[in-house]
Amino acid sequence: MAKESTQVEILDAAAALIAERGYTATSVDDIALRAGVAKGSVYYNFGSKADILEAILQRGVGRLSELMSSAREGREGLDALEHMAAAAIEVIRDRTDFAKILAAEVFRVGRQWEESIGAVREAAISQFAEVIAPMRPDLDAHLAGGAVFGSVLVAGLEWMVFESDRPFEDVLAVVKALLGGLVKA
Amino acid sequence: MAKESTQVEILDAAAALIAERGYTATSVDDIALRAGVAKGSVYYNFGSKADILEAILQRGVGRLSELMSSAREGREGLDALEHMAAAAIEVIRDRTDFAKILAAEVFRVGRQWEESIGAVREAAISQFAEVIAPMRPDLDAHLAGGAVFGSVLVAGLEWMVFESDRPFEDVLAVVKALLGGLVKA
Repeated sequence: MAKESTQVEILDAAAALIAERGYTATSVDDIALRAGVAKGSVYYNFGSKADILEAILQRGVGRLSELMSSAREGREGLDALEHMAAAAIEVIRDRTDFAKILAAEVFRVGRQWEESIGAVREAAISQFAEVIAPMRPDLDAHLAGGAVFGSVLVAGLEWMVFESDRPFEDVLAVVKALLGGLVKA
Repeated sequence: MAKESTQVEILDAAAALIAERGYTATSVDDIALRAGVAKGSVYYNFGSKADILEAILQRGVGRLSELMSSAREGREGLDALEHMAAAAIEVIRDRTDFAKILAAEVFRVGRQWEESIGAVREAAISQFAEVIAPMRPDLDAHLAGGAVFGSVLVAGLEWMVFESDRPFEDVLAVVKALLGGLVKA
């Protein structure tokens, strides 16, 4: 039987390599080597390289959805947005490779894992959009959700990749400042 | 002598393919076929596939820098940020393939074209950061520049890829709303 720990090791190794080099430049051999398992074990646990990427995306989106939904629960308006943004920044901090892959893949269409990427967009952009819609009927809520998600994703990755000595609060403060603009004077 | 029009055709073809499939999955043969030129002509005009990506990034960053600088000229504070954001959205509209490649590559380090990607980050994020710094000394200006650039990039690509029937003004309105949050009450 496939051990869950082996699967997690394979997914973590694959996410690190794909985040660094891109999907096509990463081979199953590379993934096996990095995970410290036999190539056969990779194929035993996941049918193909595309299936591994699917699993990385699904694991990431699961975590993102879960944290954003629970951050939103019982809140509305700016308060909900601030807590959802904080949850999303936590996911970027804890799953930086997933976030990098997301940034790389979210606007590519026609790839095999398009559906999983669509689920991430739905989880992130649409959740923000739903909260923004009643606050700002004058704006296109979906584009606004995209803008908020973009500010979280890029500020979060900028932090993790180039300024990781900064505290979490500095990133959150920046996103909160922008979110404040959605409250009509 | 290399014709400029041939070079532009090669760059446009390569940008479209790389934006769609990624760098490694795009071959020089694919680029030649899409551009309608001989493979030898691709190598004659550009030494390698990596040089083509460098040229795509440099051409994009040149345009982005130019438009953002001239939008900023003679302005400051929120007024400057709004005009710079509008200029960046125009670049995303007119050079969507470049913008997709940028989103995919901006947080990958150690690649051959890291310097060109650094120039884009400098052109976009740092220009926003310079304007934000005196407005909001309480924030990390660089992270704030990243957040603003992220909101522009993701809202702009969301628009071009999934909601291109919307007018330019809808995207700008969303980004302006967020920028308004940087003005202290």
